[in-house]
Amino acid sequence: MHLFQCIPNVSEGRDRAVVEALAEAVRAVSGVRLLDYSADRDHHRSVFTFIGAEEGITEAVLALFAQAEKHIDLRQHQGLHPRIGAVDVVPFVPLEGTSMEDAVALSRRVAALAAERYGVPVYYYEESALCEKQRSLAYLRRGGFEALAELEDLSSRPADVGPSVLHPRLGASCFGARRPLVAFNVLLDTADVEIAKRVARKIRFRDGGLRYVRALGLYLAEAGLAQVSINLLNTDQTALYTVLEMVKSEAKMYGAGVRSCELIGVMPLKALVETAAYYLRIPELSVNKILERGILDMQEDKQMG
Amino acid sequence: MHLFQCIPNVSEGRDRAVVEALAEAVRAVSGVRLLDYSADRDHHRSVFTFIGAEEGITEAVLALFAQAEKHIDLRQHQGLHPRIGAVDVVPFVPLEGTSMEDAVALSRRVAALAAERYGVPVYYYEESALCEKQRSLAYLRRGGFEALAELEDLSSRPADVGPSVLHPRLGASCFGARRPLVAFNVLLDTADVEIAKRVARKIRFRDGGLRYVRALGLYLAEAGLAQVSINLLNTDQTALYTVLEMVKSEAKMYGAGVRSCELIGVMPLKALVETAAYYLRIPELSVNKILERGILDMQEDKQMG
Repeated sequence: MHLFQCIPNVSEGRDRAVVEALAEAVRAVSGVRLLDYSADRDHHRSVFTFIGAEEGITEAVLALFAQAEKHIDLRQHQGLHPRIGAVDVVPFVPLEGTSMEDAVALSRRVAALAAERYGVPVYYYEESALCEKQRSLAYLRRGGFEALAELEDLSSRPADVGPSVLHPRLGASCFGARRPLVAFNVLLDTADVEIAKRVARKIRFRDGGLRYVRALGLYLAEAGLAQVSINLLNTDQTALYTVLEMVKSEAKMYGAGVRSCELIGVMPLKALVETAAYYLRIPELSVNKILERGILDMQEDKQMG
Repeated sequence: MHLFQCIPNVSEGRDRAVVEALAEAVRAVSGVRLLDYSADRDHHRSVFTFIGAEEGITEAVLALFAQAEKHIDLRQHQGLHPRIGAVDVVPFVPLEGTSMEDAVALSRRVAALAAERYGVPVYYYEESALCEKQRSLAYLRRGGFEALAELEDLSSRPADVGPSVLHPRLGASCFGARRPLVAFNVLLDTADVEIAKRVARKIRFRDGGLRYVRALGLYLAEAGLAQVSINLLNTDQTALYTVLEMVKSEAKMYGAGVRSCELIGVMPLKALVETAAYYLRIPELSVNKILERGILDMQEDKQMG
């Protein structure tokens, strides 16, 4: 099967009915499977994780735009998380039977369709970017929706596809192919956002931390607590537990600890196995030691033979 | 597919060539998949984990007996682990498409074949036992091979199938159907076996500990360290991390800690997820949050439709 994973981030995390309508729009597409979705009131953002082949993925992304057009007006939107669009970021990840080149091609095709149908300018990022600078979401989203809205037109920040003016309510979008990542938030047991920011700086690559870690310190008003919001870009090389233990260790310096964590979207089995291997102290634990893996292999043997 | 898991325990853990010959005998059977095997010098025992349908499982168990007949003489065998036979215990676990009744029936059929072909008396244990008392391996193995070898014949301890005298070199075997269990050894950082024994007593059901835990304290001469050897009979109800944390907590009383752990055989995916959920502090982590699970479900949908 030629499968991709797609993880759109939508700028609506407070109105439960809208989040459900968005999820339902994805579920209604026969060619995809919605694996996970979650909404965050403080981030004012929701994340949908689904997998499917090219046709289903295309249809599902367009269905999210249709719902966003109905329900979202970025001029009314305030949230913690950086964003420039209602359907802010649409990442495409190659899975079984597909390559990064396939994902790049798909991201651009779907971007062109969304741009045309909904009048939204789209920037290509990460592997889909047309120049090095635009690989970075942080660069593309500098100043947020508000900075783009102040411009007469987008001639100073031209989109890669779509109109040369911002959509008044939907803003712009970023489409890109990328390697899989794990989105992982650590809620501290302190309200002091400065601690979260310091921890984030210690663990992230940009400031000398772990190679595959991006992190932000945020204050969650809803919980009244500070959060370290983490993207782990390569779980094969930097383990999830390494990141968590480093957060714990840095937070301890300020007398703070970890209240709880959350996973946004899904994680690969191997990351799970490594976590268990570390905490259970079974260094030789591997995917092969999972019963279900063996059953699956057996069934595949059967189908082959 | 009508699958069973079978986990024979063989009384040979020191001669690497024999252990490899045993593993190879299982691998050579086309209808089974050897998921894992391991040997322990101190226990002087090896454990083979394989899955397959009835025919393959039957053939693989008989192949282990053939190798044991060639290579093992229990009269020369000394090890830490209780045992009465060369192929000491043969557990059968129902997997997909099979019931406990199926596993009981299979265990008795294979037992009858092994008894007839190799002249080994077989006791049925656990779910396959014919009376309540004989469900327990500890009861069946009381006094070990040596106690049985002292008897003129087995009239005082009659086997359920097979000859009425012990096989001189292969002893007797225990065959039984059971629920899946996780075999998990915790190596302490102390040589004091008394500490391991006390910890074992605290955590095990028999002495007031956790409902689904069986445990023994052993001294591993090879490592020069004490070990808590654990069988966790139901990982749905008693989590692996609960057991490990309890071992740590009890050992701490004596100033001892955990050096490392080992998993004998395989573990179910759900146990892995619960471990990660606990240590990563993601209470809502579930099997559905694993990417591979989603891909698998998607492929199954495809096959159905």
